[in-house]
Amino acid sequence: MNIKPFMGGEFLLTGRLASQLFHESAEQMPIFDYHSHLSADAIAANQPFQNLTHLLLANDHYKWRMMLTDGVEEDLIRGNAPDWDKFLAYARVLQGAIGNPLYHWTHLELQRIFGIREPLNEQTAKRIWDECNEKLGSPDYRPQALLERFGVRTIYTAEEPLSGLKAHQQLINQPAVKVRVRPTFSPDSAMQIDQPGFAAFIAKLGETTNKTIRSLGDLLEALESRVDFFHAVGCRTADHRMETVPRFRLDEEKADRALKSALSGQPVKAKQADTYRTVLLVKLGLLYARRNWVQQYHIGSLRNTNQRMYALYGPDVGFDSVSDAPIADNLSRLLDAQERVMSLPRTILYCINPAHSYVVGSMIGNFQQSDLQGKLQIGPPWRFYNQRDGIQSHLQLLSNLSLLNRSIGMTADSRSFASFSRHEYFRRILCERIGIWVSYGEYPNDIGALRTIVRDICYHNAARYFE
Amino acid sequence: MNIKPFMGGEFLLTGRLASQLFHESAEQMPIFDYHSHLSADAIAANQPFQNLTHLLLANDHYKWRMMLTDGVEEDLIRGNAPDWDKFLAYARVLQGAIGNPLYHWTHLELQRIFGIREPLNEQTAKRIWDECNEKLGSPDYRPQALLERFGVRTIYTAEEPLSGLKAHQQLINQPAVKVRVRPTFSPDSAMQIDQPGFAAFIAKLGETTNKTIRSLGDLLEALESRVDFFHAVGCRTADHRMETVPRFRLDEEKADRALKSALSGQPVKAKQADTYRTVLLVKLGLLYARRNWVQQYHIGSLRNTNQRMYALYGPDVGFDSVSDAPIADNLSRLLDAQERVMSLPRTILYCINPAHSYVVGSMIGNFQQSDLQGKLQIGPPWRFYNQRDGIQSHLQLLSNLSLLNRSIGMTADSRSFASFSRHEYFRRILCERIGIWVSYGEYPNDIGALRTIVRDICYHNAARYFE
Amino acid sequence: MNIKPFMGGEFLLTGRLASQLFHESAEQMPIFDYHSHLSADAIAANQPFQNLTHLLLANDHYKWRMMLTDGVEEDLIRGNAPDWDKFLAYARVLQGAIGNPLYHWTHLELQRIFGIREPLNEQTAKRIWDECNEKLGSPDYRPQALLERFGVRTIYTAEEPLSGLKAHQQLINQPAVKVRVRPTFSPDSAMQIDQPGFAAFIAKLGETTNKTIRSLGDLLEALESRVDFFHAVGCRTADHRMETVPRFRLDEEKADRALKSALSGQPVKAKQADTYRTVLLVKLGLLYARRNWVQQYHIGSLRNTNQRMYALYGPDVGFDSVSDAPIADNLSRLLDAQERVMSLPRTILYCINPAHSYVVGSMIGNFQQSDLQGKLQIGPPWRFYNQRDGIQSHLQLLSNLSLLNRSIGMTADSRSFASFSRHEYFRRILCERIGIWVSYGEYPNDIGALRTIVRDICYHNAARYFE
Repeated sequence: MNIKPFMGGEFLLTGRLASQLFHESAEQMPIFDYHSHLSADAIAANQPFQNLTHLLLANDHYKWRMMLTDGVEEDLIRGNAPDWDKFLAYARVLQGAIGNPLYHWTHLELQRIFGIREPLNEQTAKRIWDECNEKLGSPDYRPQALLERFGVRTIYTAEEPLSGLKAHQQLINQPAVKVRVRPTFSPDSAMQIDQPGFAAFIAKLGETTNKTIRSLGDLLEALESRVDFFHAVGCRTADHRMETVPRFRLDEEKADRALKSALSGQPVKAKQADTYRTVLLVKLGLLYARRNWVQQYHIGSLRNTNQRMYALYGPDVGFDSVSDAPIADNLSRLLDAQERVMSLPRTILYCINPAHSYVVGSMIGNFQQSDLQGKLQIGPPWRFYNQRDGIQSHLQLLSNLSLLNRSIGMTADSRSFASFSRHEYFRRILCERIGIWVSYGEYPNDIGALRTIVRDICYHNAARYFE
Repeated sequence: MNIKPFMGGEFLLTGRLASQLFHESAEQMPIFDYHSHLSADAIAANQPFQNLTHLLLANDHYKWRMMLTDGVEEDLIRGNAPDWDKFLAYARVLQGAIGNPLYHWTHLELQRIFGIREPLNEQTAKRIWDECNEKLGSPDYRPQALLERFGVRTIYTAEEPLSGLKAHQQLINQPAVKVRVRPTFSPDSAMQIDQPGFAAFIAKLGETTNKTIRSLGDLLEALESRVDFFHAVGCRTADHRMETVPRFRLDEEKADRALKSALSGQPVKAKQADTYRTVLLVKLGLLYARRNWVQQYHIGSLRNTNQRMYALYGPDVGFDSVSDAPIADNLSRLLDAQERVMSLPRTILYCINPAHSYVVGSMIGNFQQSDLQGKLQIGPPWRFYNQRDGIQSHLQLLSNLSLLNRSIGMTADSRSFASFSRHEYFRRILCERIGIWVSYGEYPNDIGALRTIVRDICYHNAARYFE
Repeated sequence: MNIKPFMGGEFLLTGRLASQLFHESAEQMPIFDYHSHLSADAIAANQPFQNLTHLLLANDHYKWRMMLTDGVEEDLIRGNAPDWDKFLAYARVLQGAIGNPLYHWTHLELQRIFGIREPLNEQTAKRIWDECNEKLGSPDYRPQALLERFGVRTIYTAEEPLSGLKAHQQLINQPAVKVRVRPTFSPDSAMQIDQPGFAAFIAKLGETTNKTIRSLGDLLEALESRVDFFHAVGCRTADHRMETVPRFRLDEEKADRALKSALSGQPVKAKQADTYRTVLLVKLGLLYARRNWVQQYHIGSLRNTNQRMYALYGPDVGFDSVSDAPIADNLSRLLDAQERVMSLPRTILYCINPAHSYVVGSMIGNFQQSDLQGKLQIGPPWRFYNQRDGIQSHLQLLSNLSLLNRSIGMTADSRSFASFSRHEYFRRILCERIGIWVSYGEYPNDIGALRTIVRDICYHNAARYFE
């Protein structure tokens, strides 16, 4: 076996067919990114990045996590050390991170954005830092230009239900901005009935919508008015994060009582909270279905598990992990409750735990619908599962349990403007998988059909699904 | 890498050794199919298939499920559209189903039964339809001839405990019928103490056995008389479907009380139902052990999850998925309860969730027995897990956690007469796996020993296990 | 594809780079075995092995389990049959055990200890028996010589908290013994508050430490005095076996009450026992952290599942399997409770169920610490998961979710002196994995960096972690 050059043009591609499919089809397709944590404000402001640390490290808690694993000082991670020191510290950690997706992502980021082809390590860090920082000064490396460079046509950013969506409205009115930036309705605050800030959130929601919220009915009206506002600004999808799927109990009276307890400052028990969440999910599903929105569930992330670090740095800074609570029964009933009243919207179910993927991969087949191709989707690998092996497993799972050719492909699910190279990563693995199947005689060598499959998965399916 | 011809003779086989093992040994072996949902009546009646839709699509809910995933209208799936339209709709879906086991199964069915070697798609559908339908008119394509063509020596069909087993008795008396068709005792109705039809089932069981069933003791006597009747007609195995393994509580008094509640129309709580099921499973195990039967448990299928579709079409039409409730503790205690009184029969444990496979693969080692090779078996991949990757994982799991060479191999577990090509699919993957091990120097290149292993897994182990 | 010779020098290695890394680096490294069930007495006594059965079969319940799976009589497994008969019986089973890790381990044992290169089977058994037995008479094959032959520098043996550690003290005083044998503090008896022997254990602990143990405070003092004694004899690590992670409830008063109930002979409920265990784990963690010990948790083994065999043979003879109870939430809280008070020691989490590995692989990232490389580790595959496929998955999981280059590598976790060849097995798979990554261009072909990674994982990381 000859040794291939480091992350060259044929990276992750072995046979000739895989290479052909990637270079002729996959690589050419634009990006439709239907789940992102990018800041719409940052896109609208379009300020240049101060330096490489701001672009690559500033919002990427995947990288912070890896640095702490290697024993790097907090000052160099989430702290106030100089940017160059942070970058160097990252380079030192990365050079040993063999097999880690960040190793590949980082180098794809350097290659595609800056044309840097050498490995990042302690020795090369300074040269790379200088070269990239020089480029970052030019207008070609501002946020909007980066999105264009990656071929991003549409991006959906996650937004609080109370958000005024100013940046989105501003961007709609700028015809020079080619990427379409749309909000995602993300009403997790409305779900967290057992968390400290809940009553305050409900009060603010009441203010924003000019309602006094005293009951479940009031709350649903208020949320519907936010849904309508989001819809007017171009929103076509909602997203829900769930640590696990709530115990299924569809009892509106109990849910109403739980809400009233919470608003009056009384404690809400776990079972009550689950009933409340179940009812709210079913009711919101109806609102989404009526507007022909897509519903997204992100299932199974244990959040903010390190209380000491949470007290220091708050949420979403790299201290989440994976739940293994069983979900099959409750999720099946939740979908069925929506299906029974014909109000199940198109739905994407994302699993962070691969054990859940198999359950969900089999479950989506129970709720598909005539006249819609792939109405229910299992979302692409996410967070810890978003790596070469995870993507391979995902593609095989999809092809085995559902229809891979109807899949809506990848989403970068990121807080970093550099992260769109994850689409390329996914596409290479996809083309390699298809190339292998055909090479082994498991599917006909019909290049036209194969190109269609690749292009659909890379772009067209998502575009059709959401539009 | 050269591209292999589409599903040719070397399909799924790479090295020369794998090819040799498959063509010289595996391919030649007859089939012993120990778990099937084929209709014994249909075998006995031996009527010709009206057309290809009746043969390939009529009873195959795997295919229906895939069609709905692609948005096909119900009329063309479970409805009343013309047979040709259904077949064409299926061909259109299938042509994009890259990587799906149905893609391979369907083509193996067309190849082995009809000698059709071209891919099925929108363009070829009419030609294939005409050619196959012409052949289906000949006596060589009737049910019994198909079973012979596939080399089926013995087949066990699942039967309700109330069944009169007419077809089985009729077939025994027809010496011209070469395949042995035996019933499997499938007493799931007796387990469903918390389901609507339970009391009615018990009443019918009483009628059939001339007993008034008022207690657990009565019920066990009635079931024993059915077991004896099945035994007399050649039954040597029982099968139990479990959504999950019931919470272990071996309390006969509680079980008896639960039964009495159910018979008097009172509601039965989940815990009571589990106690009842546990007791019944242990008691039935004793009946099976005394008659030297094989006990089969199918674990972990969530059934009839879509209530709207269930109301329209009833059970077993493609709306099941996979449970992820933990099973280790309860299953271990259930087997131990049987083992403790020396009444654990030979037992096959089937997992539909691969996460369960690992648990069960380790558990069978705890209950093996001197003088019986592979007394406890983990059943072959089933339903969603029955695909190339699932079979590969299963073989590796078996070889790692138990003894692959004592495995009883494959069962088609199907409702379709065409489905026996799934044995070939399994055998190819098996030979490829063994070929790879030997090629990499992980097992001696001793062709005699390898042939024995292959033949044992393909046929002899199952035949010995059941006879 | 050419067929490689059976288990030759390139066993498990394909490319040239993998071969180079193994032969030039991995193979040369000594062994630091941080978790073993070898008998320190046997090392100190250093008696010759009577014959091959005593060396290979006497304490290896993996092998017993496989023999029972093949239907071997108990007399030849755990019974009193002559040693030669037992060895022959094992050879007969092994020859068919294609793909099983015991197939490879046994042949590595014969190759590395005795230079036997032919496959063990019915025909070769006598010749191998004679040749090995002759060698076993020589001083070069006594326990200490075997440890040296395998390059074992340090070994940690698991010891009861009441142990007097005589053998360890004796070995320290023998400068001729090159291997360092250190105890591991294994206080499982103190956890089993709901088991029959608990009160008797506490009484003995009181005697040993000259304390009357009436409360949780007393117990902790007694345990601390044992921890100090172990520390004085060179212990630097503690190990806890958990069937599952106890339900998290950190309530010292409840734990104290549970202990008092148990000591007064009253039954302890499952929830109480879990509270007791949680509190004890957190408190012991503090004792370990203060002494800079490493904490090891072995999670998820269902023990002594076959009560009939347990009554005959007692614990640890081959009747354990795998738990699938969810662990994420409780384990996360348990670690967080220690982290919150800054008393979380360096910790290794071992999973026997691969489904748990993913959960734990993501969780360790939440509790890493500045100034310590890889403070939290996921332990290497263990028991059923310790096989080629398990090791491959483990390496990929580590590289994807954490930092493979900071991993502390393998531990044989065995009761057999021959079992250190499992380190070689692991190292071959490691070098093959790295070779593949580089060959495919996924990591730079920088032989210096690769050698460092390999040597660190094989030896240096563990040595640094523990010393």
